Amino acid sequence: MRNSAKASLFAASIALAAPLGALADEGMWTFDNPPSALLKERYGFTPTPQWLEHLRLSSVRLNDGGSGSFVSSEGLVLTNHHVALGQLQKVSSEKKDYVQDGFYATTRGEELPCPDMEMNVLVSMEEVTDRVLGALDPKAPDRAQNEQRKAEMARIEKESADKTGLRSDAVELYYGGEYWLYRYKKYTDLRLVFAPEAQAAFYGGDPDNFTYPRYDLDMALFRAYEDGKPARPKHWLKWSKAGAKEGDLVFVSGHPGHTERLQTLAQLEFQRDRFLPMRLKLLRERLKALRAYSARGAEQARRAQALIYGYENSNKALTGSLEGLLSPRLLSDKAKAESEFRSLLASKPETADCAGAFDRIAAAEKLLAPRSGEHIFRSRPSGSRLLSLAESIVRWAREAGKPNEKRYEEFRDSALESLRFETFSPAPLYADLEETMLGLYLRMALQEFGPEHPFVKAALGGGKPEDVASQAVAGTKLFDPEFRRRLVEGGLKAVESAEDPLVALARRMDPDYREMRKWYEDNIQSVLAVEGRRIAKARFAAFGRSTYPDATFTLRLSFGKVAGYEEGTTLVPSRTTFFGLFDRAESFEGMPPFDLPRRFAEARGRLDLATPLNFATTNDIIGGNSGSPVADKDGRLVGLIFDGNIQGLILDYVYTEEQSRAVAVHSAGMLHALAAVYGMDALADELAGAKP
Amino acid sequence: MRNSAKASLFAASIALAAPLGALADEGMWTFDNPPSALLKERYGFTPTPQWLEHLRLSSVRLNDGGSGSFVSSEGLVLTNHHVALGQLQKVSSEKKDYVQDGFYATTRGEELPCPDMEMNVLVSMEEVTDRVLGALDPKAPDRAQNEQRKAEMARIEKESADKTGLRSDAVELYYGGEYWLYRYKKYTDLRLVFAPEAQAAFYGGDPDNFTYPRYDLDMALFRAYEDGKPARPKHWLKWSKAGAKEGDLVFVSGHPGHTERLQTLAQLEFQRDRFLPMRLKLLRERLKALRAYSARGAEQARRAQALIYGYENSNKALTGSLEGLLSPRLLSDKAKAESEFRSLLASKPETADCAGAFDRIAAAEKLLAPRSGEHIFRSRPSGSRLLSLAESIVRWAREAGKPNEKRYEEFRDSALESLRFETFSPAPLYADLEETMLGLYLRMALQEFGPEHPFVKAALGGGKPEDVASQAVAGTKLFDPEFRRRLVEGGLKAVESAEDPLVALARRMDPDYREMRKWYEDNIQSVLAVEGRRIAKARFAAFGRSTYPDATFTLRLSFGKVAGYEEGTTLVPSRTTFFGLFDRAESFEGMPPFDLPRRFAEARGRLDLATPLNFATTNDIIGGNSGSPVADKDGRLVGLIFDGNIQGLILDYVYTEEQSRAVAVHSAGMLHALAAVYGMDALADELAGAKP
Repeated sequence: MRNSAKASLFAASIALAAPLGALADEGMWTFDNPPSALLKERYGFTPTPQWLEHLRLSSVRLNDGGSGSFVSSEGLVLTNHHVALGQLQKVSSEKKDYVQDGFYATTRGEELPCPDMEMNVLVSMEEVTDRVLGALDPKAPDRAQNEQRKAEMARIEKESADKTGLRSDAVELYYGGEYWLYRYKKYTDLRLVFAPEAQAAFYGGDPDNFTYPRYDLDMALFRAYEDGKPARPKHWLKWSKAGAKEGDLVFVSGHPGHTERLQTLAQLEFQRDRFLPMRLKLLRERLKALRAYSARGAEQARRAQALIYGYENSNKALTGSLEGLLSPRLLSDKAKAESEFRSLLASKPETADCAGAFDRIAAAEKLLAPRSGEHIFRSRPSGSRLLSLAESIVRWAREAGKPNEKRYEEFRDSALESLRFETFSPAPLYADLEETMLGLYLRMALQEFGPEHPFVKAALGGGKPEDVASQAVAGTKLFDPEFRRRLVEGGLKAVESAEDPLVALARRMDPDYREMRKWYEDNIQSVLAVEGRRIAKARFAAFGRSTYPDATFTLRLSFGKVAGYEEGTTLVPSRTTFFGLFDRAESFEGMPPFDLPRRFAEARGRLDLATPLNFATTNDIIGGNSGSPVADKDGRLVGLIFDGNIQGLILDYVYTEEQSRAVAVHSAGMLHALAAVYGMDALADELAGAKP
Repeated sequence: MRNSAKASLFAASIALAAPLGALADEGMWTFDNPPSALLKERYGFTPTPQWLEHLRLSSVRLNDGGSGSFVSSEGLVLTNHHVALGQLQKVSSEKKDYVQDGFYATTRGEELPCPDMEMNVLVSMEEVTDRVLGALDPKAPDRAQNEQRKAEMARIEKESADKTGLRSDAVELYYGGEYWLYRYKKYTDLRLVFAPEAQAAFYGGDPDNFTYPRYDLDMALFRAYEDGKPARPKHWLKWSKAGAKEGDLVFVSGHPGHTERLQTLAQLEFQRDRFLPMRLKLLRERLKALRAYSARGAEQARRAQALIYGYENSNKALTGSLEGLLSPRLLSDKAKAESEFRSLLASKPETADCAGAFDRIAAAEKLLAPRSGEHIFRSRPSGSRLLSLAESIVRWAREAGKPNEKRYEEFRDSALESLRFETFSPAPLYADLEETMLGLYLRMALQEFGPEHPFVKAALGGGKPEDVASQAVAGTKLFDPEFRRRLVEGGLKAVESAEDPLVALARRMDPDYREMRKWYEDNIQSVLAVEGRRIAKARFAAFGRSTYPDATFTLRLSFGKVAGYEEGTTLVPSRTTFFGLFDRAESFEGMPPFDLPRRFAEARGRLDLATPLNFATTNDIIGGNSGSPVADKDGRLVGLIFDGNIQGLILDYVYTEEQSRAVAVHSAGMLHALAAVYGMDALADELAGAKP
């Protein structure tokens, strides 16, 4: 390409050490600290407090693991199909598969309640750094400080929840550089209004996932209800019928889940050598088992579809992340930046003590390494929902008797309402699927840790993994939400005496879990907390607040522009159109997963194929941002984030503007599809015609 | 991608050493040695002699630098727009720009004669290896053998031409492993019938060149005339209206220009370190000059357009080739293969003497290195057509007095008819453009070789390059084809005494050229010929004729299948459709060079957008194959080769099947465009309806 200089893939700043350059659309900014200077310099735009508040209060977090936004005065919530997928799966049955067929409510009465979808709106943010740090005894050992920190966070949450009735989360940012109390308005009555068929939402399937150009109608609409009536939010995003064009400044307001940009070199090496390989191993084994299960029949395929989607998505994302870490440049750039930062710290008396923090973190990661497989295996979901429920119920009963601030975070008073909502969900569970996933989990435990490991011994008692799984699933009553409710309400006594074989299994597995968690919190987490805080303090001292914290599934603002990029020796356009969907389907001669969605084929005569369908932006996003609104500078909805391209899979570690792109559904495309493909004219009118 | 194993980019065999594996659609096969075993094994297909003859006699070589085929009983010849581009440029004027606007003859009477297009059909092939080698004295020094070889080839050509009246070329294959006499039927009355506008033919411009997926109608139709009437070829390809589909076996019959797969490691290193960097330097300087010239005004832009296309094309192709050679794998694989081959040779008494051939070639390349810049600079076209004419006329006059077999090859009797055709072409020349290119050539000579170099001294005589160029162009009469004819017919005396300043410049430059050429032929070419032959002989001894020679712009057969490929983590489809053209134009919001061709926009209502437009195949092709027919196993025309993808730019050195693809216009797309976009219904009928 002769028209633009080819910049290095990793030209972007490595956030750890340097303040952010003014040269990139970088950052997942907290709403209390928007990138006003950058925005002014790059785009001549200054966000007002009102503008920020409007966007923040229009944005929602969906606790299935995504983001969304209010898009009408009557509580319509826009998010991705793939964020809604779990609920779509749960309301489907052997008779009616809403995932494959889509769902269309033409009247309010037809709107379909979701079994266990919680939605949060961030209504206030209050800094509590001084209070949290004030509760620490700086002379105490790390592990004591860690307990003091957690206890104080628990107290802050409980006080707030008791006082306001709002969901109150104590949030750690910058690895302990700041603490905030985030209060959320909570919605738990969400009803499904519209979801296209999976083939339209996820056109191109796993191959096209993390790919651009793209042609996906990855949208779904819920309506939030309060007291049985549609919610009437004060803030919601007006729909831009034209949407955004090449070069337009756009914002994404959503909940990026997790990044590691401020982590140290040692932490990234741990990711590369331990964490990601182990997670990928687990993912791939589960995918293999699920595909085999799925192949048993149409109903099994239906039951497994959302799970397979999730694992395939994670597999592709983490593979890309690992490839990023394995590339020669990324970690050598990080090492260079870290070394310069350490020199800077060492050169000033007030930060000289901080230089050693990097070594202490490295020592903690080294200590963790031999137990890391076990830690990853036990601290993440098992793959069997039934086992997760059993373990949670047992742990909950055993924690409940402790003072609030001594409990595991997930069993603090402030968390119990959401926990109950999840635990007693009426969503269906399938015995054959649970048996498959539980069997795999136990088999992998045996393979990975051997028969003599206390956890394996306790779980299997010398039996075969498959037999233990099959007996536990065959005998358990945990399929019944009422049984789960009675267990939880019966308290410790009911749980400890229950003869249910799956509860018994969870009881046997619990002591080793507690040992492992305590060891981790005392020896690893406490070091990371103390040293991370030290580094954060030094960073603030050196660079002020010209930076943003790593993602934590809390609300963030990112900015960027609608932009294509160079690839190979040509250009990738900033958007795609309906023409392109038809081209791809015809180009593959209809081969799945590239076959044209049936309703699009039927609607061909009604379609204006030049309508934009997807578009790419330079916004800095990551998993969890799925479903985030893309807003223009007038705060109107111009798009819906649903993916990043393959070049964006290193955004976990470093932002680059050359090729990494956020990928969104275009507001004009969504509106056109609703009306011309799905005949949802009333809904399209509600979105397009509604006045603020 | 989970559905297919990811193979290494360079998994293909390195042709130098190993016999071809049966696992790839590899090879540019001569028609006397078709890959019958491979075809049978991979596709269950056996080409008959009749099948081969039909395809060969339907195939044509266009001496502007491309390939083509007869596609009707009345002499219609199909090739690429970009092969026709030179002629389109030459028949255009300030008033009528057929490049930009296209050309459409609706009656025979409107068909437009081309000024200097020669077309060849390979009517017979006769092996003359024994005769050529028999003329050599194996005890003579390399340089004497080199002269003996050339003289014998000249005699063979002359005898054949005198006897048959056919164009007769002595062809060297396998670097001297074989010699063949190729006889061609020659056509010089070619008339333009149809060419689309450049924006349709070359949609996406330089960025999309060597890119796939692609959406180009890169076609043109000529009609061959004999004795003022349309030619009636006995063999021509019937048009397949449906064209080829994914997985179909297809053949390409055309004239690949140049490959270096059988060259030694030392030769490829020379390419990497000397040849390609120098050629790219020259190309880029010329492009810069042409762009500046083009920016002077619309008419200048028109005059320069075909040249700019050509230089941009070469620049992108050679850049890709160089990147291939610079990649870590390619040359290390080559080194390994060569070393294994040498061990094999050394292990057998009959080939033991051959192992040293590699070292002698390496020594020759080392000897060439310091003079390589000069050799490349002087032995390739200067960029000024006028200077090329002047140099050729001077050299011709000075060669003419020698015995036929002692002359430079290009002035042998057998070459003179084509040479006259070129030299006396009425194609227009533009003084300002010639001055620009001549000035650049002289300026670069000065920069590269300094004022004391004999060539520079002779050319400039101490003057400034720009002044010498401007005076020569201002004073010359070579613009006039009649003046050129009189000069040539006047013979040595007329040329030596001409006061024309450009002829004088060419006379001054000639002695140094002759010195350089003689040095090269005696010291480099002779070594490469003798040692190349030795290696070829050893290769035949080891592997038989299970291989194919490097490309030499002679007719070759390649086979393959219609196939997409993996890229990034998704799939690229095997074809594109008219939908995709509209998508790309709309996706770039009409930004050039991605704007929709006007006639396509106007025709939208008449188009079936699902019609295939371009497709990709695994056939082994290279520059010179442009315009080659793609035929199915029934010998019907299913497509028209016009490009390779970017991954194919290493095909100069090694064939790979994973991602390298030939790119063709689809036969259904061409027919549909002719009828629905251009209203050329009669032409479409001639193509589609004609019976064999």
